[in-house]
Amino acid sequence: MQNKMAGKNPGVEPRLNISQIGGEFALIERLTKKPVQREIIKGIGDDAAVIKAGGKYLVLTTDTLVEGDHFSHKYFTPEQIGKKAVEINVSDIGAMGAEPKYFLVSLVLPKDIDIKIIENIYKGMRKTGRKYKIEIIGGNMTHGRQLVIDICMIGEVKKKNLKLRSTARPDDDIFVSGDLGSSAAGLNLFLENKKGHVNVKKRYLEPEAKFYKVKPFLKYINSMIDISDGLASEVTRICEQSNTGAVIYPDLVPIDPATRTAAEICKKRALDYALYGGEDFELVYTVSREYTNKVQGFMVGKITRKKGVRLYKEGIEEPLTKHGYDHFLI
Amino acid sequence: MQNKMAGKNPGVEPRLNISQIGGEFALIERLTKKPVQREIIKGIGDDAAVIKAGGKYLVLTTDTLVEGDHFSHKYFTPEQIGKKAVEINVSDIGAMGAEPKYFLVSLVLPKDIDIKIIENIYKGMRKTGRKYKIEIIGGNMTHGRQLVIDICMIGEVKKKNLKLRSTARPDDDIFVSGDLGSSAAGLNLFLENKKGHVNVKKRYLEPEAKFYKVKPFLKYINSMIDISDGLASEVTRICEQSNTGAVIYPDLVPIDPATRTAAEICKKRALDYALYGGEDFELVYTVSREYTNKVQGFMVGKITRKKGVRLYKEGIEEPLTKHGYDHFLI
Repeated sequence: MQNKMAGKNPGVEPRLNISQIGGEFALIERLTKKPVQREIIKGIGDDAAVIKAGGKYLVLTTDTLVEGDHFSHKYFTPEQIGKKAVEINVSDIGAMGAEPKYFLVSLVLPKDIDIKIIENIYKGMRKTGRKYKIEIIGGNMTHGRQLVIDICMIGEVKKKNLKLRSTARPDDDIFVSGDLGSSAAGLNLFLENKKGHVNVKKRYLEPEAKFYKVKPFLKYINSMIDISDGLASEVTRICEQSNTGAVIYPDLVPIDPATRTAAEICKKRALDYALYGGEDFELVYTVSREYTNKVQGFMVGKITRKKGVRLYKEGIEEPLTKHGYDHFLI
Repeated sequence: MQNKMAGKNPGVEPRLNISQIGGEFALIERLTKKPVQREIIKGIGDDAAVIKAGGKYLVLTTDTLVEGDHFSHKYFTPEQIGKKAVEINVSDIGAMGAEPKYFLVSLVLPKDIDIKIIENIYKGMRKTGRKYKIEIIGGNMTHGRQLVIDICMIGEVKKKNLKLRSTARPDDDIFVSGDLGSSAAGLNLFLENKKGHVNVKKRYLEPEAKFYKVKPFLKYINSMIDISDGLASEVTRICEQSNTGAVIYPDLVPIDPATRTAAEICKKRALDYALYGGEDFELVYTVSREYTNKVQGFMVGKITRKKGVRLYKEGIEEPLTKHGYDHFLI
């Protein structure tokens, strides 16, 4: 994905203080100039870049997994690491309304790494590749102090199917494609050394892209993003790019009972997992009122002319912070 | 570039033992399946991948710089790091006969990094971008224990200009586009704490892609590769992919007098810098005998039917090891 300081797994390793550097989103935008080439349909600022090539639109994204930050060998098998690296990029491509096609893999490997680990990471990548009928077309290996997997993925999209973050309209209903917070709950269970809860933990270990869920009704969607960093962050990004605000109805956010149970055990609020946890890889999409009966999913909020993202419950509005996950320290 | 365990700067940090894992080239090829999609013109195995998109050929490559392995803040300014990250990818694109167009940047940042360093890395990337009229279209930031810069670059090439490693022919003459070994000499001077020799050191700190040198006579070139890992490795790659062998005439390898002086001071052989040092980013290209008068550069060897790469001097042939840089420990 683009523009993301991926503080996804708080607690695994201390992270860069984003607020100190003004937010990674703002930082990358500030450090990158507006594109001038006419073939660049969308540069920095969405889940993926879009370029015109021949008669087609190509969609390109890059995402990185860092050992200790995005995964730990304590919880993940190498195959799961490989699968996750591909899924999160497929999710970004799907969030543009596009189909993934190819990817390039850069690995940074600690010098004492067992070759079996590399083989099984690749095995995981190939398996997920087969699932989506996409292929590895390039690769690079180098060494460093910790394992880093960087994938650059290329997809294709028809112009009419292209979905951006910047095209939400006031009064759009905000939908999510599935239940939220389970991935954060899974991580929390691991960090608290809680036994059992295999299904919740699996949602953390084996995330899957969800494009298939929205594909049938793509034409009714005004704007879309995938959930990497929690519903709060993603709705904020849509609003910033679309020059709108939003309200989220916390009681309507779908949360699996197993996620609620995990929250109780870890003494957390399940809603915080959903809002600030991240890595659900469900899609958030906005739809004009007149078409809400044409789409599926869970209505969780509304785009507003009034700026800022607010929680709305029992007549009371409460502002949401921009980078929810900064305040979500497990 | 593709298929490379970038053991470029021996001595800066201990590296993965490539021979132990069977060579990174063989490793990536083994771990990646042959492409099945018809749009994939060239997958793993060259400087960049080639895909058909609309009526065009797109060329894609990824390359990584790791702190302590490919650069040290002791020698490089942040701006030089940013420039180098872009140049090495431009070099891979050029080695395919292609023009660079866009790139995506993934940064892994230590949590205590000064924002000024990030800004100046980006400044360097933007400067080199302007030089080639190419643009940053995507970015990602995450954190980790050491600074990692991964760039995925996209270029375009007309079918007739596409140059591969796999198309050298027996009796082709082997050319290089410029003098070799200066980058390795520069690094060696740094590691030996030698003062002065600013120009040699600059060749290490500020490498530049050399595509412009061969562009005027591209149509006479049968196969091409850029020099990331030393002449020995690159000729070996051409031969492996083309199912040929080669002889290299060591006396014809162009070496700058300043590089020779540096070698003397460091008590090394300048030829070893050229053969095994790497990061020259000059191009190696092979040309049919009948067209050698149409091209420019330095003739340094010959493609042969007989397999293996050999040094040829005064009637004696001496085999070259496959991964020269494994045996070149500064």
